[in-house]
Amino acid sequence: MTELANLTTMEVDALSDLEGGLNLTDGHARLDLSAEQVAIVARIPEMFTAATRSPFPAIETAAHRAFLDAIGQHSAPVGSGRILSCYSSTLATDIVARALPAGATIAVLHPTFDNIADLFTTRGLRLVPLTEEAMLDRAWPGPPVSAVVLTHPNNPTGLVTPEGHLRSLAEHAVRHGQTVIIDASFRGQVREAQYDTYAVLDAAGADWITIEDTGKLWPTHELKIGLLAYSERTRLPIERAFSESLLAASPVVLQLVEALARDWVNGGYERARDLVERNRDTVRAAIEPIGLCLADPGSRISVARIGLPQDGPDSSLLYKDMLERGVHVLPCAPFHWAAPEDGLRFVRLSLARPYDTVRRAATTLAEAYRELSATV
Amino acid sequence: MTELANLTTMEVDALSDLEGGLNLTDGHARLDLSAEQVAIVARIPEMFTAATRSPFPAIETAAHRAFLDAIGQHSAPVGSGRILSCYSSTLATDIVARALPAGATIAVLHPTFDNIADLFTTRGLRLVPLTEEAMLDRAWPGPPVSAVVLTHPNNPTGLVTPEGHLRSLAEHAVRHGQTVIIDASFRGQVREAQYDTYAVLDAAGADWITIEDTGKLWPTHELKIGLLAYSERTRLPIERAFSESLLAASPVVLQLVEALARDWVNGGYERARDLVERNRDTVRAAIEPIGLCLADPGSRISVARIGLPQDGPDSSLLYKDMLERGVHVLPCAPFHWAAPEDGLRFVRLSLARPYDTVRRAATTLAEAYRELSATV
Repeated sequence: MTELANLTTMEVDALSDLEGGLNLTDGHARLDLSAEQVAIVARIPEMFTAATRSPFPAIETAAHRAFLDAIGQHSAPVGSGRILSCYSSTLATDIVARALPAGATIAVLHPTFDNIADLFTTRGLRLVPLTEEAMLDRAWPGPPVSAVVLTHPNNPTGLVTPEGHLRSLAEHAVRHGQTVIIDASFRGQVREAQYDTYAVLDAAGADWITIEDTGKLWPTHELKIGLLAYSERTRLPIERAFSESLLAASPVVLQLVEALARDWVNGGYERARDLVERNRDTVRAAIEPIGLCLADPGSRISVARIGLPQDGPDSSLLYKDMLERGVHVLPCAPFHWAAPEDGLRFVRLSLARPYDTVRRAATTLAEAYRELSATV
Repeated sequence: MTELANLTTMEVDALSDLEGGLNLTDGHARLDLSAEQVAIVARIPEMFTAATRSPFPAIETAAHRAFLDAIGQHSAPVGSGRILSCYSSTLATDIVARALPAGATIAVLHPTFDNIADLFTTRGLRLVPLTEEAMLDRAWPGPPVSAVVLTHPNNPTGLVTPEGHLRSLAEHAVRHGQTVIIDASFRGQVREAQYDTYAVLDAAGADWITIEDTGKLWPTHELKIGLLAYSERTRLPIERAFSESLLAASPVVLQLVEALARDWVNGGYERARDLVERNRDTVRAAIEPIGLCLADPGSRISVARIGLPQDGPDSSLLYKDMLERGVHVLPCAPFHWAAPEDGLRFVRLSLARPYDTVRRAATTLAEAYRELSATV
C-alpha cells in the first residue's frame, strides 16, 4: 500500500481484476437479487414508459416518500423541495462540501470512510477528528468548528449514534451556531439507526444536512440515488452547488428505488439482513480457530472488520499477501484519516456478496494469516 | 432573470413545473423512443443478469468500443485504461477541473454552456475567453494559458471545429506545453464533428483530454455515461480525482450504451437526425413570418438559437413572457459567460423533444414576440 492510495483506488483495482479474483472491498451491494427483486427489475421497461408520461416531480416525491418511510424517516421534508436526488451519496457529499464556506473548520467522525474526509479537504475545508469515543462521551467540539459530520451508522465500525447523543449534539450545535451533518448511507441496513433523526434535529431547532443512500441496500449495479436533505434553517448555497453538478437524477432509477423500498418493508429488509448475518457468521467461524475475531461483533452493517493482534503481521502485509492469493479486501489505515497508524491492526471485508464468495475469502484470509504469522 | 441564475437552475425550474408547462430548456434527449430503442430497453432485465456474470472491465471495454466506433473515434484508447466511465459528462468535466493545477489559466471557448466555465472557476482556475471568431482565425492563446478548452460541436451555436483547425491548435499546444481539452458531448449528432480527433491530437504529439457523452443522443431518462479519455502524455492526477468522485459507472448502463451505439450505426443516427431536423424546420417556419430567423441555420445539434433584432424585446423579456405562457426556453446571456450582454439577443430552444411539443412552443414564441414587439 502506497501512502497515496485511497480506499476507492483499491476498490477500483479489485473491480478491474482481470484474473477472476474475489472482490470484498467496496460496500456496494453485490448480493444476488432475491426473487422479489428480480420481479421488480423485470418491470424496468415499464418504468421507462412511465417516466415519459408522468411529471418528474411526481415520480421523485413518490420515491422519496417510499424510501424514507421504509427506513423510519417519517419527518424528512418530503415534497418541500429540500430533498435533492443525486447520482450517488458521494456526489451529495461533494455538493455539501462545495456549499460550505471554504476555509471553515469542521469536525468529522474518526475513523470513517476516507472519501468523506477527502471530499471536504479537497474543497478547502479544515478538518478536525471527532473520535468515536468523544461522540459516545458527548464531548462535542466548540468554535472554531462550524459543522459536525457524523457517519450513522459508521463505516467501517457499524457504530450507531444513539438517539440521546444526537439530541445532545443538536442542542450543542444550536448553542454554538453549528450545522449538524449526517451521512446515513448505511442506515437502511440497521434498525437501531432508523429512529427518526429528522424529528430529533428539528425538535432541537438545529441547522442540519442529511445524506441518505440507496446504493448500499440493493444489488442494482450502481442504479442508485444519493439524497441530500437540508433543514429550513440552512442558508448554505446548496441548490446552486447542486445545479453545477447535475440537472436531475433518473426518473427510471427513482421508480426502481420506490419499488425496492416497498419490498424492503415487505420482508426485503429481513431477507437481506439474514444473508449478511450468515456471511458475518461465516467470517467469524473461519477466523476464530486461528485466534482472530471480529472487531465489531455488534455491527449490523454489510462490512466486517477483523482485528489483528499487535504481535502478528499487520494489515498492510496481510492485504498484499491476500492480493497474491487473488482476494481483495481493504486494509483499514486509510479509514483513520487523521492517524493512519491506528488502523494498521484491522482489515475490512464486505459482506454484501454471495455466500460462497465470502466463505472462500474468509478461508483464504485465515490461511494467509496463519502462514504469515509463522514467518514473521 | 436574476444575475445569479445559471442555465441549469432554469432547467431545474422547467423540470419542476407542476402546471404542465412545455420544457424546451435542457439539451438532454427527450424524444420518444424509436421502435428499435424500445426493443433495446426491453432487454434491460437481461443486462442485469449479464452484469452479475461478466467481469466489469469486459462490459466497460465493449461499451467504449461500440460507442466510440459509432461516432467515428476509432483511435480512442479503448482498453488502455485511459478512458474512465463517469455518471455524466458534467462529472467528467469536474474531475478534469479538479486535476488541473489550482490557479492555472485556461482558455475556454466563448460562448459555450455556462456550466463548463462554472465548473472550472469553482475549482480555482482562471478563465480567459477564446471566441469562436478567434478559433476560426486560428488565433490561439499563448502563455500563461496552460490549457485550451473547446466544445466540439459548440453548444449553443453548433459550430464544429474543423479538422485543420484542431491540428493547428494541437501543434500550437505542443510548442507551448499546453493541454488540449475537448468537450465533445454533442458530437454524436453531427457527422462533420466525427472525424477522428484522437488521431489528429496524437499525430501532433499533443497532451489532450477528451470528454464524450451519451446523454445528448438517446432518450434514456438520465441512464447515460460521460467518458473521460486522456493521452499517454497526460501527467495530471486524473485517476486520483476520479476515485474521489466514484467507484464505477453502472454495468447495466454500459450495456445499454453498447446496444444503442449498435443501433446508431444501423439507422438510429438517421432516424434521430430526421426528427431533430423536422423540429428545426418547424421552428423556422413558425418564426420567419414575424421576421425572426435561426441564428445558426447550419447547426445540426439538437438545440436552436433564435436571433432577436436590436430594436425589439430582448431575450430576458421574452423568456419571462413565455414563462407566463407556460413555455420554458433559455435566454442566452449565461452562455456568454465572459460578456453576458452579448447573449441578450438570443434564445435557445431544445429540439430533442416530441414534434408537437416543439410546434406548440415555436408557435407560442412567435405570438409572444409579436405581442411584445407591439408594446415595447
